[in-house]
Amino acid sequence: LLEKIRFVQIGLGPMGSSICRLAIEKEGIEIVGAVDLMNVGKDVSEVLGLRGKLGVRVTDDVKSVLTTKPDIVLHSTVSSLKMAEDQLETILKAKVSVISTCEELAYPWDIQDDIAYRLDSIARENKVVILGTGVNPGFCMDTFPIALTAVCQSVVHVRVARVQDARSRRLSFQKKIGAGCNLDEFEQMKKTGKLRHMGLRESTGMIAAAMGWSIEDYDETIEPVIADKEIRSDYFTVMKGQPAGVAQIATAKVSGRETIRMEFKAYLGAPDSYDTIWITGVPNLEVTVNGGIQGDLATSAIVTNAIPRVLSASPGLKTMKDMPIVHTFMGNLAKFT
Amino acid sequence: LLEKIRFVQIGLGPMGSSICRLAIEKEGIEIVGAVDLMNVGKDVSEVLGLRGKLGVRVTDDVKSVLTTKPDIVLHSTVSSLKMAEDQLETILKAKVSVISTCEELAYPWDIQDDIAYRLDSIARENKVVILGTGVNPGFCMDTFPIALTAVCQSVVHVRVARVQDARSRRLSFQKKIGAGCNLDEFEQMKKTGKLRHMGLRESTGMIAAAMGWSIEDYDETIEPVIADKEIRSDYFTVMKGQPAGVAQIATAKVSGRETIRMEFKAYLGAPDSYDTIWITGVPNLEVTVNGGIQGDLATSAIVTNAIPRVLSASPGLKTMKDMPIVHTFMGNLAKFT
Repeated sequence: LLEKIRFVQIGLGPMGSSICRLAIEKEGIEIVGAVDLMNVGKDVSEVLGLRGKLGVRVTDDVKSVLTTKPDIVLHSTVSSLKMAEDQLETILKAKVSVISTCEELAYPWDIQDDIAYRLDSIARENKVVILGTGVNPGFCMDTFPIALTAVCQSVVHVRVARVQDARSRRLSFQKKIGAGCNLDEFEQMKKTGKLRHMGLRESTGMIAAAMGWSIEDYDETIEPVIADKEIRSDYFTVMKGQPAGVAQIATAKVSGRETIRMEFKAYLGAPDSYDTIWITGVPNLEVTVNGGIQGDLATSAIVTNAIPRVLSASPGLKTMKDMPIVHTFMGNLAKFT
Repeated sequence: LLEKIRFVQIGLGPMGSSICRLAIEKEGIEIVGAVDLMNVGKDVSEVLGLRGKLGVRVTDDVKSVLTTKPDIVLHSTVSSLKMAEDQLETILKAKVSVISTCEELAYPWDIQDDIAYRLDSIARENKVVILGTGVNPGFCMDTFPIALTAVCQSVVHVRVARVQDARSRRLSFQKKIGAGCNLDEFEQMKKTGKLRHMGLRESTGMIAAAMGWSIEDYDETIEPVIADKEIRSDYFTVMKGQPAGVAQIATAKVSGRETIRMEFKAYLGAPDSYDTIWITGVPNLEVTVNGGIQGDLATSAIVTNAIPRVLSASPGLKTMKDMPIVHTFMGNLAKFT
């Protein structure tokens, strides 16, 4: 049993920083290295806005930081698995396990199975574990509905809605969903793929795999949610008639009919935030998280909470549906029974 | 990979029968034996009320039925682990894995750790798995809240309420909760322990273990819910002023303060059925299953759904918090990825 879990943080953007801050706070977890393209040479505490020095300087050299022989890498850089692949491979070949928020890693077996097989075999060869997780993909729209089907004798349809009033989210998130831009800019963002919530396809794939379904047809639409009155966030104001955010709907067909429907809506001024799951089966289930799951807090939580599960998993590429239940972990492995 | 999962059913009471019926329905699962104290010699189909014969006769001899070398035993007899222990031991020593609805097996490590250690070591010696599960204990008031903490950075309090309008439950359940008896009979049932929902202590222990908490003090109260008007179920009528069912409240203290609160209420005429979980932490969570989780359907579901997880688990005594996520399983292992 490790007395201290020594970790390296790769990626110190808003999400990576919040993961890193939380991991450092936990009593049994210690940072031994940090990688980012910005802030090279600075003490990590300065980047995170913490008092005092941690004695760990940001570097842009992944290989050198892995010579510290960490127990785990927490990885939060890009959404695209293709773009993350080389770096993930480098980590695994250094015989270090990794938890990444790369959205396309959450369930890559469906549409990027070539990369999935490659990362899985590299992880096995090097006897380490790689897991993609986060609040979404990773929980709200995949692991959570899958876990609920434990009490279902059979399931014929899964519908998941994640609706968020984006006023409570960070500025970069509010911009990402197109709030406050005009319709032309919205279409432009949509065309370049910047607007898209990443991971809906992966969440759909994870649910289908758990249910034993083969997806025949997958469709995804992205539309603006138009403000019906002026809406202010902490950062800016959206005028009536402007996009306040995004509605992204995904549907998957199995045996000729819709079996999975995912509704992701994030916009300024949504009357309620909630995560709701409707399972049609025996029995039917309707489950609501009142107020929704706060994304920024939850992603750093689930990444750090997954650490003990990853440390004791068998080697390979894992997805959340294969892991023993991830739950709150305060950092002390001796108390993790 | 098994082409067919061959199982033996032990216990053909209402719950055991519903588990057995569901398992038989699944395409890749086959019954090879059944044990019960009643109906010895009858074909199982007759006991279950199915058409046609299954060619499997009920026996009261556990050892003989295990000579069929089943892949798994589904066990549904008593709530008391002490009373189930010998039979569970016999199954494990025959090198067969077992899933049991014995409530005290759901998390025996806290208050019956002697039996837990013994069953764990027998299972390991014989390279098989033993798991206690069900809808409650096993899901609603333990696994489910534990799984939700995946998105929490920290947790300071867990409150779980399971409130059921018992009008939808089977007659034996309605009687078990004291509906329709008078107050003296209720007190009498309470004294003899017949009224008690079994498993609240186990669910509390499972949550505490997952959170890394040591329970210092545990308290449980049982009170009647008095009908404020006449209430009819399919089976009988409860008069105004009579007990309509039971309210059982458990609280656990850690470090001098309440950290877990469990509220189990089952009575005829509850205005709503629901399962609600309140987690106080970062972030707070409030999650509701609208209409609640229908207990009779759910227990047979979770037992059969756990089969593939148990078949691929490492040997020993498992609890739901250690298992990979249990989800709907239609019986075909080839489709279980």
